[in-house]
Amino acid sequence: MSLARPNARLLRRLPLQQLRTYAAPGEGSIPPAKKKYVPTTGTYPLGFSAGSAHVGVKASNTRFDDLALIASDTPCSGAAVFTTNKFQAAPVTVSRDMLKRRKGEGIRAVVVNSGCANAVTGKGGIDDAVAMGEGMDKCFVEDETRSPEDDFTDDGKGSRTVVMSTGVIGQRLPIQKITSKLPTVYSRLGSTHDHWLSAARAICTTDTFPKLLSRSFSLPSSSEEYHIVGMTKGAGMIHPNMATLLGIICTDAPITAPALQTLLISSVDKSFNSISIDGDTSTNDTVAILANGAAGGKPIANDTSSGDFKAMQETLTNFTIDLAKLVVRDGEGATKFVTIRVTNAATYSDAKRVASTIARSPLVKTALYGKDANWGRILCATGYAENVSSVIPSETSVSFIPTDGSPELKLLVNGEPEAVDETRAAKILESEDLEILVKLSDKQGEEAVYWTCDFSHEYVTINGDYRT
Amino acid sequence: MSLARPNARLLRRLPLQQLRTYAAPGEGSIPPAKKKYVPTTGTYPLGFSAGSAHVGVKASNTRFDDLALIASDTPCSGAAVFTTNKFQAAPVTVSRDMLKRRKGEGIRAVVVNSGCANAVTGKGGIDDAVAMGEGMDKCFVEDETRSPEDDFTDDGKGSRTVVMSTGVIGQRLPIQKITSKLPTVYSRLGSTHDHWLSAARAICTTDTFPKLLSRSFSLPSSSEEYHIVGMTKGAGMIHPNMATLLGIICTDAPITAPALQTLLISSVDKSFNSISIDGDTSTNDTVAILANGAAGGKPIANDTSSGDFKAMQETLTNFTIDLAKLVVRDGEGATKFVTIRVTNAATYSDAKRVASTIARSPLVKTALYGKDANWGRILCATGYAENVSSVIPSETSVSFIPTDGSPELKLLVNGEPEAVDETRAAKILESEDLEILVKLSDKQGEEAVYWTCDFSHEYVTINGDYRT
Repeated sequence: MSLARPNARLLRRLPLQQLRTYAAPGEGSIPPAKKKYVPTTGTYPLGFSAGSAHVGVKASNTRFDDLALIASDTPCSGAAVFTTNKFQAAPVTVSRDMLKRRKGEGIRAVVVNSGCANAVTGKGGIDDAVAMGEGMDKCFVEDETRSPEDDFTDDGKGSRTVVMSTGVIGQRLPIQKITSKLPTVYSRLGSTHDHWLSAARAICTTDTFPKLLSRSFSLPSSSEEYHIVGMTKGAGMIHPNMATLLGIICTDAPITAPALQTLLISSVDKSFNSISIDGDTSTNDTVAILANGAAGGKPIANDTSSGDFKAMQETLTNFTIDLAKLVVRDGEGATKFVTIRVTNAATYSDAKRVASTIARSPLVKTALYGKDANWGRILCATGYAENVSSVIPSETSVSFIPTDGSPELKLLVNGEPEAVDETRAAKILESEDLEILVKLSDKQGEEAVYWTCDFSHEYVTINGDYRT
Repeated sequence: MSLARPNARLLRRLPLQQLRTYAAPGEGSIPPAKKKYVPTTGTYPLGFSAGSAHVGVKASNTRFDDLALIASDTPCSGAAVFTTNKFQAAPVTVSRDMLKRRKGEGIRAVVVNSGCANAVTGKGGIDDAVAMGEGMDKCFVEDETRSPEDDFTDDGKGSRTVVMSTGVIGQRLPIQKITSKLPTVYSRLGSTHDHWLSAARAICTTDTFPKLLSRSFSLPSSSEEYHIVGMTKGAGMIHPNMATLLGIICTDAPITAPALQTLLISSVDKSFNSISIDGDTSTNDTVAILANGAAGGKPIANDTSSGDFKAMQETLTNFTIDLAKLVVRDGEGATKFVTIRVTNAATYSDAKRVASTIARSPLVKTALYGKDANWGRILCATGYAENVSSVIPSETSVSFIPTDGSPELKLLVNGEPEAVDETRAAKILESEDLEILVKLSDKQGEEAVYWTCDFSHEYVTINGDYRT
């Protein structure tokens, strides 16, 4: 497709640091302002390794790794949450079937390509996704350095690999190019920080920085130190449920497959399903988690009342929230990171629907980009949120909560506009981070938190010629 | 609010003809490409007059008329459809109450100000809207040139005037300034083309051209020639149900108040509630219709099976569709006019939900702006439309229908991507008008049509500093 002239002109005029290209970015291209979000070290789970390789899935990508592999040394529990889009990409179908067939047990690895989503590719696309998973399995099976007592014996249940793809919709994968590089990515597996970071980088598309987090945690019933690592990619089509969003999380805590699925669903609801870049829900969204128990201890069962389960839930929810926030930080064209907190709703669903409606309003998002304290648009979005019964206009209040610890700036109190100090509002809107607080009524009630970014000229530039 | 620096810079770089200011535009500022949508003559209904005056509701507007009046010589039927936003502007509340109190009968006029929406202005705002309506009534009552047998006698039911406001939310009207100019706008009433055009211009905000349509029609039971005129304004916050959208329609056909309400609701569903600029639904949307019967004939009763009713419904629906399309033509920053036709749905509601979801997808809209035949995004939006049960992925097809009469360009057929002739796709996307056809299944079924525009850099520029 030829590049539209006006876009090309405008693109040349944009500040260089705002430009992003559709390819996994090299180290040098991370915008200075985003460098702080990329870790230089980490604490990684035992018994997992990661690696990446260059395929050139997108023909124009001659430089950057676009194939990532994350593997467990031993069979582990696996769980995943997938897109709700009716057009599900081939890797979604294939990975869902695999996890179902194995009941989430005996999982070995996650293999991911960027550059092509393998979505809306018909039966051929399914074959490609299967080939990618089985090709990956083969590398493990044929590796003679692995012990013959390797627990990954053929149990007749087929592939043990979760497959993910992200990129353009409607094009077939260059599957031969990919399968020919599977041994390469396998040979590059390792457990250092650089290995994890290279994998996090290889799953990126229009992202401007790799999104990798790791931390340690403990469980009430054990004296072990546990570890968790996660990587994710954005950066457009981000909206529940869920987005062109991939997430891969690994922990060395021992968690049964049913417990892992319960824990993941609940944490994704509060994290990846509580962010919005543009309101579009893609065909490929997948968040997968592997738990191999390599750190020891008693397995966490699917008992939501147990102390270990609760602690794991809290750890995982907070961890996925932090991962999801990184996606918003890197929203296409984003210049702002906005927390939307909706309180005093009759139900969590009401609060979340209002927060989500504000988060996807183009008028709210362009006002934030323009640093305009246009609370009328926030209120307007609150008023048109669908299937919400607990908005009481005469009791609704809207405030900005600054991130520098200074007092809230009230914009609307109980349905009546405040005389707004525009100088202070402008100052608050200068900073990258902002919280919008919307109280729906005077009655104590449920609260939902949502994260979003602004809508900028750059968003339009990026998405006007994504396929070029 | 101070103008954000990057915006100011970018604004200066935009081609001059793309700039629009937040004020009713003068004749000279209509972009050359839009001139063809502004009529130079018209055929107007008998017994109606129109006029405009300058108030300066927005202090920065020192030049352009921002007060419009449309009046019937005799008491007429009136009906209106209002926003579904929970935060309803004061004029919405006041006009709704007035029409209810009068049962849609004995209506005299519609008065409209642009520059301030009188929304979220508390009790004081209600008082302002009442004062605007009653001040208008007073001009009619005190006019000694009117016959003493004037049917507009005091019937104890209060105001006979529909009040509308459009502009910024959360600021009080400068009501003294407005009421002091009501005699002026009254004195300027007239029935020439220029009078109607001046009123259509005065209701504009960020619109780049006034939206006025008129035509003649007939009814099966009568030999009379009837007339209908309509004006509307956009151009942001346009999405069902409905938008910062005002519409005023007048006809000299005789229609009872209950019939008028039924006719309006049905036609708005297929027209103003089938367009989207940005997915935002404002606090002020109102489409009102007056019918004074001045052309004679037997009144059309609220009988959907009668020939006259059916003919009037068809006339009004087609007329409101053409009016609504003008709003899309002038969508903020729009460079494209896109018709979305969704066919073979199990229900009209399913078809309309899918069409609406495609119409508001930022990814689809930026691709259209970038002239990118990214059908994957169209399909993706089809797949995440909520509460839709009749999408069958393996039977879904997507095509572009060119407006030059050349054959359709198939992009996806029964869930399988076509090898797209990108040169031809690029050519089709060069033209301003485009139809996207989405077939949801192989089963004959319901169809919905939706109109939308693209998402451009200019949309972001306009809405980043609207209040400035």
